[in-house]
Amino acid sequence: MDGITVFCGQGHPELAENICYHLNIPLSPTKFQRFSNDCQYIQLLDNCRERDVYIIQPIAPPVQDNLMELMLMLDAARGASARRRTAVIPHFAYARSDKKDAPRISIAARLVADLLVTAGTDRVLTVNLHSDQVHGFFSCPVDHLNALNVLASHFRGQDLSNTVVVSPDLGNAKSASHFARILDVPVAAGQKRRISDDKVVIDMIVGDVAGRECIVMDDEIATGTSVLELLACLRDRGATSFRLACTHGLLTRDAVAKLTDPEDVLELVITDTVPLAEDKRGPKVKVLTVSRMIAEAIRRIHAGESVSSLFDI
Amino acid sequence: MDGITVFCGQGHPELAENICYHLNIPLSPTKFQRFSNDCQYIQLLDNCRERDVYIIQPIAPPVQDNLMELMLMLDAARGASARRRTAVIPHFAYARSDKKDAPRISIAARLVADLLVTAGTDRVLTVNLHSDQVHGFFSCPVDHLNALNVLASHFRGQDLSNTVVVSPDLGNAKSASHFARILDVPVAAGQKRRISDDKVVIDMIVGDVAGRECIVMDDEIATGTSVLELLACLRDRGATSFRLACTHGLLTRDAVAKLTDPEDVLELVITDTVPLAEDKRGPKVKVLTVSRMIAEAIRRIHAGESVSSLFDI
Amino acid sequence: MDGITVFCGQGHPELAENICYHLNIPLSPTKFQRFSNDCQYIQLLDNCRERDVYIIQPIAPPVQDNLMELMLMLDAARGASARRRTAVIPHFAYARSDKKDAPRISIAARLVADLLVTAGTDRVLTVNLHSDQVHGFFSCPVDHLNALNVLASHFRGQDLSNTVVVSPDLGNAKSASHFARILDVPVAAGQKRRISDDKVVIDMIVGDVAGRECIVMDDEIATGTSVLELLACLRDRGATSFRLACTHGLLTRDAVAKLTDPEDVLELVITDTVPLAEDKRGPKVKVLTVSRMIAEAIRRIHAGESVSSLFDI
Amino acid sequence: MDGITVFCGQGHPELAENICYHLNIPLSPTKFQRFSNDCQYIQLLDNCRERDVYIIQPIAPPVQDNLMELMLMLDAARGASARRRTAVIPHFAYARSDKKDAPRISIAARLVADLLVTAGTDRVLTVNLHSDQVHGFFSCPVDHLNALNVLASHFRGQDLSNTVVVSPDLGNAKSASHFARILDVPVAAGQKRRISDDKVVIDMIVGDVAGRECIVMDDEIATGTSVLELLACLRDRGATSFRLACTHGLLTRDAVAKLTDPEDVLELVITDTVPLAEDKRGPKVKVLTVSRMIAEAIRRIHAGESVSSLFDI
Amino acid sequence: MDGITVFCGQGHPELAENICYHLNIPLSPTKFQRFSNDCQYIQLLDNCRERDVYIIQPIAPPVQDNLMELMLMLDAARGASARRRTAVIPHFAYARSDKKDAPRISIAARLVADLLVTAGTDRVLTVNLHSDQVHGFFSCPVDHLNALNVLASHFRGQDLSNTVVVSPDLGNAKSASHFARILDVPVAAGQKRRISDDKVVIDMIVGDVAGRECIVMDDEIATGTSVLELLACLRDRGATSFRLACTHGLLTRDAVAKLTDPEDVLELVITDTVPLAEDKRGPKVKVLTVSRMIAEAIRRIHAGESVSSLFDI
Amino acid sequence: MDGITVFCGQGHPELAENICYHLNIPLSPTKFQRFSNDCQYIQLLDNCRERDVYIIQPIAPPVQDNLMELMLMLDAARGASARRRTAVIPHFAYARSDKKDAPRISIAARLVADLLVTAGTDRVLTVNLHSDQVHGFFSCPVDHLNALNVLASHFRGQDLSNTVVVSPDLGNAKSASHFARILDVPVAAGQKRRISDDKVVIDMIVGDVAGRECIVMDDEIATGTSVLELLACLRDRGATSFRLACTHGLLTRDAVAKLTDPEDVLELVITDTVPLAEDKRGPKVKVLTVSRMIAEAIRRIHAGESVSSLFDI
Repeated sequence: MDGITVFCGQGHPELAENICYHLNIPLSPTKFQRFSNDCQYIQLLDNCRERDVYIIQPIAPPVQDNLMELMLMLDAARGASARRRTAVIPHFAYARSDKKDAPRISIAARLVADLLVTAGTDRVLTVNLHSDQVHGFFSCPVDHLNALNVLASHFRGQDLSNTVVVSPDLGNAKSASHFARILDVPVAAGQKRRISDDKVVIDMIVGDVAGRECIVMDDEIATGTSVLELLACLRDRGATSFRLACTHGLLTRDAVAKLTDPEDVLELVITDTVPLAEDKRGPKVKVLTVSRMIAEAIRRIHAGESVSSLFDI
Repeated sequence: MDGITVFCGQGHPELAENICYHLNIPLSPTKFQRFSNDCQYIQLLDNCRERDVYIIQPIAPPVQDNLMELMLMLDAARGASARRRTAVIPHFAYARSDKKDAPRISIAARLVADLLVTAGTDRVLTVNLHSDQVHGFFSCPVDHLNALNVLASHFRGQDLSNTVVVSPDLGNAKSASHFARILDVPVAAGQKRRISDDKVVIDMIVGDVAGRECIVMDDEIATGTSVLELLACLRDRGATSFRLACTHGLLTRDAVAKLTDPEDVLELVITDTVPLAEDKRGPKVKVLTVSRMIAEAIRRIHAGESVSSLFDI
Repeated sequence: MDGITVFCGQGHPELAENICYHLNIPLSPTKFQRFSNDCQYIQLLDNCRERDVYIIQPIAPPVQDNLMELMLMLDAARGASARRRTAVIPHFAYARSDKKDAPRISIAARLVADLLVTAGTDRVLTVNLHSDQVHGFFSCPVDHLNALNVLASHFRGQDLSNTVVVSPDLGNAKSASHFARILDVPVAAGQKRRISDDKVVIDMIVGDVAGRECIVMDDEIATGTSVLELLACLRDRGATSFRLACTHGLLTRDAVAKLTDPEDVLELVITDTVPLAEDKRGPKVKVLTVSRMIAEAIRRIHAGESVSSLFDI
Repeated sequence: MDGITVFCGQGHPELAENICYHLNIPLSPTKFQRFSNDCQYIQLLDNCRERDVYIIQPIAPPVQDNLMELMLMLDAARGASARRRTAVIPHFAYARSDKKDAPRISIAARLVADLLVTAGTDRVLTVNLHSDQVHGFFSCPVDHLNALNVLASHFRGQDLSNTVVVSPDLGNAKSASHFARILDVPVAAGQKRRISDDKVVIDMIVGDVAGRECIVMDDEIATGTSVLELLACLRDRGATSFRLACTHGLLTRDAVAKLTDPEDVLELVITDTVPLAEDKRGPKVKVLTVSRMIAEAIRRIHAGESVSSLFDI
Repeated sequence: MDGITVFCGQGHPELAENICYHLNIPLSPTKFQRFSNDCQYIQLLDNCRERDVYIIQPIAPPVQDNLMELMLMLDAARGASARRRTAVIPHFAYARSDKKDAPRISIAARLVADLLVTAGTDRVLTVNLHSDQVHGFFSCPVDHLNALNVLASHFRGQDLSNTVVVSPDLGNAKSASHFARILDVPVAAGQKRRISDDKVVIDMIVGDVAGRECIVMDDEIATGTSVLELLACLRDRGATSFRLACTHGLLTRDAVAKLTDPEDVLELVITDTVPLAEDKRGPKVKVLTVSRMIAEAIRRIHAGESVSSLFDI
Repeated sequence: MDGITVFCGQGHPELAENICYHLNIPLSPTKFQRFSNDCQYIQLLDNCRERDVYIIQPIAPPVQDNLMELMLMLDAARGASARRRTAVIPHFAYARSDKKDAPRISIAARLVADLLVTAGTDRVLTVNLHSDQVHGFFSCPVDHLNALNVLASHFRGQDLSNTVVVSPDLGNAKSASHFARILDVPVAAGQKRRISDDKVVIDMIVGDVAGRECIVMDDEIATGTSVLELLACLRDRGATSFRLACTHGLLTRDAVAKLTDPEDVLELVITDTVPLAEDKRGPKVKVLTVSRMIAEAIRRIHAGESVSSLFDI
């Protein structure tokens, strides 16, 4: 991998180490400091000049700090004359803010895409954006990897004859619909209903779930509240068991416990696009790695090989 | 409406006339010419200097000609020192090209958004983009009007107790889901299935439609092929009657006949965001106008009043 | 030609094939599709990553479709991480719209130059722009090839002792003047006169043409109307025979017949910067190829050799 | 103040309230929310359309959160068609990162200036940047207010016959030098010395301080460590008493106690460009307000009056 | 003229005074200084905030100093929050560098147009650019005034029955051709011939001049060498007398003497777009003013009235 | 040095020759011409295509001509398809205009930085900017070389036990302070005092100079007036001898004589970042070369090696 240099922020160094392991190159060191006035200071500790530089940093909690760190690293690499700067963003949390559904708000995903370009990114490598359209928010090339195959590999080989994939939200069921197509099983979806001015609940299910084993599929789970709401609704309609799958398992606060404590929840399958504290990894939690997939994408980007061909099934 | 000047391209002059009627101002004339080498030539025939200029043009068939015409008009208005240039785009056909679902394609909606800004648009006023995220493709402010209320007004007051709103595509059911919520009826959706390498069909329905009256809801209908496919599938599952609703009724070729000839299709309800030839307006076709809504939005934009408050229900 | 990839739009695939023949590389395939809503869809079918990509497309009739196709291909190549994207535009029809000679019009050549850069072109390779200044409309590097030598090679070796080169328009006689200098013969020019508010005719000739054989030289001929007007005027002043030469022979409608039917018109010499339908190629029509010249320019651009030195006489 | 709308972030609402009090207009409300995935969400709750919008937010601790909040508010105001957006940044902490004194670091002040412009700011109103040159980092107009007069007003009228102004750093003594000139007293400065590879100490004083009363002047005090170091050094050289003055009193952790506990420290004079918790305001701490100065600057900016004339002495 | 402020550089203060006289407003003062290191320093001495600012400066000799001065003034006006900045450039000398007729040269007119926009100009008001296409080099709106009518007014009413307008260069005869059309007289042109590798001479005349009174028309005369060459050539062919007309009379060194000393040269008619030293104004030199025309254009730009309608004949 | 091409303007060809000597490559020729209308014309006379191009030009007197020449060369190299363009600016005179210390002035250093980027520079290589912050004015990467070590090498090895480094201005003493730290000697500084509305004098010295040998250190000396003022002040306070050191010895008019005639001035040490006429090089003037340092930096930039590591002491 001649000419390639990989740095990472403090957002998920473990993933960065694994990616570098698969690339068979060392992770380059960075000095992180916080001034007494709370300003961040970073210094890249390897020569960048004319190098093909990759900076690995999920924009995951603490989101603002991770984002700023990534931008400072990109700007430093530009100032240090890196030939090309690729932001490797395994999780891009602001992707959920992708539309203007209330007056006088920011479409923050577009704003952050523009900020990253201003900060000096030449290209972005990311995994399962909340909606495919967010790809179009970037004015630089994006390689948008799909972790659904990684997740699907976990379920393949199992008996799925009585299984249905369930999306929490009919209005946003693209991933679940795609996932069902990969596994060749039917799909169902919760439908949100407005019950008062500022409260929307899931209290209807579109599609047949009675007597079925459900794979609940979402792209990101944070507190897990809406998944729990969905589970209650599915139980009411006679669903018999649940497996939860999502790409970005933020699992904040006590989400793991709340989600996996019920007996009818068999497992929670996530990937390692964001870090998960060791003490949150209960027996029902299964973490699949995207590091091989990202490493292979980096290798192909650097070598000028097709990345899309990587993902043909 | 002091200081406002409205032009239109050749895409839908009738709508422009109606908007100006509601604004109580004359539509300013434009000279359109085609050179013998097929290059377009346009000349705005009213003074633009320091005016608040609106150019009304759907990006509908002939798409490429309409788009170029709009860009030449925007550029001419900029060169003629218009204070502000707003592109009023009742239908933005390229919005469907909003993601990269195959390698080496353009996200054309983003490209066209950038082209419009390059051509000199300061802001965009549009109606029901294919997906809400396309709003974020523009680097200028966008007022994104919602015609669902216009369509809903047609159905309100009718007996909807046995009605279900059906989306042709589960993976893209946001509009139908929203429409069902407005009408307070349940929702169902077709699910696409891949039957060979390059063929996807609708052959499953998620949700209950047996014995139901269906309102099939899509944002744009062109040839109507996929709607016809959906109707067949719904009939198989026992749906009893159909009303078709969509915002942008392109209805190319013999789409009107194909869609409305079946007896169980009761009506086809569209808006006038795109022109519909007089000879295509059969007895079952109902065209609702968005001209009042657009005129009111223009009035508020020009007067500096809130546009969002216009759409509170 | 390691690292080079050549695509073409649907504007002139035959020329593209010839260029690739001279480059000794295959033309890479592209998938062209038109959605039912008239939006174009293109997919580049060869890997672009880190490649030096050339896209060959004249902006000739159908101008708007060809332009949009070129922009979609450029954008797709950018999104697919091409290292460099060169738009090869053998004819740039909008170059004639290069000034603002009426109020509230667009200088469309500048607009289109900006659109092409927005769409992702890094450089442009073009042939005989209507005026040399159009080169300066582009904010990216331009290699501006001159086909006058190709045309001149046709006339060299002939007896030109009684020949005069005639420009249709004294106010725009740069090419004819240059061409006369190459052939070492005198020059004359038509002068346009305004005969009413909106009508300008050629009814004067500046320079001596009586008893002379004329080579009428223009950069582009479309319907041929103004050339016919000039011929009439030259006949009145005693010119004895005519050969017509132009770089870009659009020859729309029945231009070939109208221009070559008169007996005193000996031949019509054009290049293949734009396609000419087989059935239009009458016995007096001579098509010279620019493919070798363009291929050599591409070779030099790719190899980092001087392009200008190619054109020293 | 017709046409003006003022919002503030959560960085220093008290100052914003005071500024609005002096402007005699209400502070417009904003909704602040944090999604469960740690992304910020803000909604401006007053109409912005065609308004002259001011957003007050110090970029002070928590720096990253305050910065992101400000950018989301600017972007929301732009999307909501504000006529002009002014970022009012009483303290800009990243201004200290204004040079590249180590390889492969970011000049973060320039980066943040660019980010703010990307986010939609049209102009900036700020107070005492760490160095005057940071003004030039912004590509939009900046009104750079000077609080030295506010601080000087505190000392004027006192007996300064035996006083010297002391800068902690000779290499950065512009403010202190200017302050001394305002008060018409001599100046002295600490000089830093490198005592090992990574340690620099103040152990020399340039200028005469023996038997003098010192006003130690810095632009920002955070932990106060380097001021304490300077005080020790000044005591060694016979200085008799100390008054500490600075514009931006961040005073993190126990800085107030550490700085004001010594008996020979008579007072600590700061302004309210950043918030100071109530429990940190000891008896020796004097907070002067910049709210009147900022309010007057806003009034003049909005009215198109000269701001510079405001600061003539 | 409420809200308008006019400054001028040191390029042509007399013209600026005349323009302000016709506008009936005072010319605002500017402080010009040159540092000992040769850097320019300018300070605008009137409030610019929210004003419509016009800066009058020909880019005429000393070209580099005048250009830099203009850019510093534009940047200062932007930094001082002028609402709009218009560069009034009566002569734009770099317009002659409008094409790339040799390898590895700059199209300097495009470069300077971009520099002016970078420096902060929002619009340009100029007079008779060397070629009309240079208008298209600017990415901001341009009002391109035509002084040919001013010049023509001088010749109208005279007996022109035996007159011919002569352009020095057939390849660049647009102005002369247009001028002849205004005066309703025939046109002729010199043709340049290459006589050696680096020498081009005018030694042919296209068109009939024997026994004729010639008006030699060029857009700019500097040393006058090529006009003298043309005169010799015209005399050879029997022309009887000469009147010289040009818009931009730079008339460097002893051009006035060389051009007007011959008896058959009756007069030299220029405008005041550039300054002419008092001692150069011989008896045959006639200077027409463009100040009224520019003042009227400024008035209309500021008032939002059509500028184009001003120039209808 | 494969792939590298070095040009120079007319600002300092001798330095360029020396740099090329150290790089062991020939300096590529350029054709310089001045049109009769005072416009500059330059042509690069070596192929630039895909080359790594360096253009050496101090922005020193004549500043405006040198700046324009540099910009034309950069633009020409861009148009000629140079792969990368680096402006090598040994002295950047406009760096002194780095702040807005009066209303309605330009921060000219930022403006010129933006102009250079507009003109096509990809990176800048410069030496000792007036203030370190000016680095941040550039939106392209900058390699900022430090000549203090070159100057220090002259003084090392001498007996400095009784020496003090003196800065003319306490408010701008960073360089002197740094220089003193390198030489391990104390530092002192003049302090400016305002004695009337528009006159500031140095009449105070901060720090101990009595009986000391002074090294007066400034970054640029032009006429030398303020240094002379400082010397007088230092003599008053008992300084015994003076050596003058500065990076950029512009030494305009009779500066050399004025500065070196006094007997107590032992020498004047400068570098060759700007040219010094042969007849100005008196016996006390010592010129040190930066050519080796710049050559080595260019070599490393081209080879992709770390430049920062070059300057570790």
